[in-house]
Amino acid sequence: MKIVVIGGTGTIGRAIVEEMQPRHDIVVVGQSRGDRQVDITDAASVQALFDHVGRFDALIAATGNLHLGPVAETTAEQFNLGLQDKLLGQIRVALAVQHHLNDGGSITLTSGIVAEEPIRQGSNATTVNAAVEGFVRAAAIELARGLRINAVSPTLVTESASVYGPFFPGFESVPVAKVALAYRRSVEGAQTGRVYRIW
Amino acid sequence: MKIVVIGGTGTIGRAIVEEMQPRHDIVVVGQSRGDRQVDITDAASVQALFDHVGRFDALIAATGNLHLGPVAETTAEQFNLGLQDKLLGQIRVALAVQHHLNDGGSITLTSGIVAEEPIRQGSNATTVNAAVEGFVRAAAIELARGLRINAVSPTLVTESASVYGPFFPGFESVPVAKVALAYRRSVEGAQTGRVYRIW
Repeated sequence: MKIVVIGGTGTIGRAIVEEMQPRHDIVVVGQSRGDRQVDITDAASVQALFDHVGRFDALIAATGNLHLGPVAETTAEQFNLGLQDKLLGQIRVALAVQHHLNDGGSITLTSGIVAEEPIRQGSNATTVNAAVEGFVRAAAIELARGLRINAVSPTLVTESASVYGPFFPGFESVPVAKVALAYRRSVEGAQTGRVYRIW
Repeated sequence: MKIVVIGGTGTIGRAIVEEMQPRHDIVVVGQSRGDRQVDITDAASVQALFDHVGRFDALIAATGNLHLGPVAETTAEQFNLGLQDKLLGQIRVALAVQHHLNDGGSITLTSGIVAEEPIRQGSNATTVNAAVEGFVRAAAIELARGLRINAVSPTLVTESASVYGPFFPGFESVPVAKVALAYRRSVEGAQTGRVYRIW
């Protein structure tokens, strides 16, 4: 398959590319590195990426920024940053790519454990990740031409624990290679509307 | 208690006011009618409402617009309308009101059955409603001074079935008076982080 991995230069993205590369033709997309660049908050940038790549079989998005901060100090403007980036950014990609994928192709987005297990300073993260999973549930029943859509919900990734660990007291981390397997299940499997929880 | 009902002039809002008025001091807030007006997409408008009302005990939001349309034809711009209105609008109200409520006060937001049960043309609705529920889960663990936050998730309301019924084939509708009871449970009860499903 020809697979586009947006966020393919990040911690999870690199593991996805390593997992998929032996069997597939991968286009690694980053913000500033990779084979191609994209800004998922910019419709023209997303369109230019897909126009360049042409038709393909699977889109993986493992990217998106959130706002972290105490709910008592969070403003609606700060909150909107996460809505515009990790949430609407991934949805923009999904809405656009449905018209570029081959029949039976797949879309795999990324949520996260805080969708279901809130943490301090995580109100934006829980909201955005729950929303991504909602979009996947809903889009799955409408996509045409046998297109499928799923999400992967990783817990704290071991390789990022030095940075994000303090936000996740008592959470068991998971090696990024195990998280990457879930993206393979989504792409090479047959399910749709699923959230693969890697906890 | 002194209770502010945003969306208090709508179908659900009027039933909430009818349910609560015998025991509480209610401020009915609408977009163009009611005791006061507010635009939940406008930070200054929300702030002006709370500055006018002064301190109070419970905020109910039963308001917010969504985008309805086939996923194949939906653009990111259309999708963002629902994110900015029913989602960020309610969250803007919640973030602002936490600083205006008396100790032990409560916030009750509105999601909807499509958060969990997707319908055709409902990708934005499922996303937004799931996100509202995520925000409630997360904010509940961080709110200070004994403040509580819950959501009510109504199914199709009988009084709106002539308009929205065609989107909900086979869904049993519920009288709006029954939905209003859930807001009373949220305000007069002691739970937090709950989604009251009225299905």
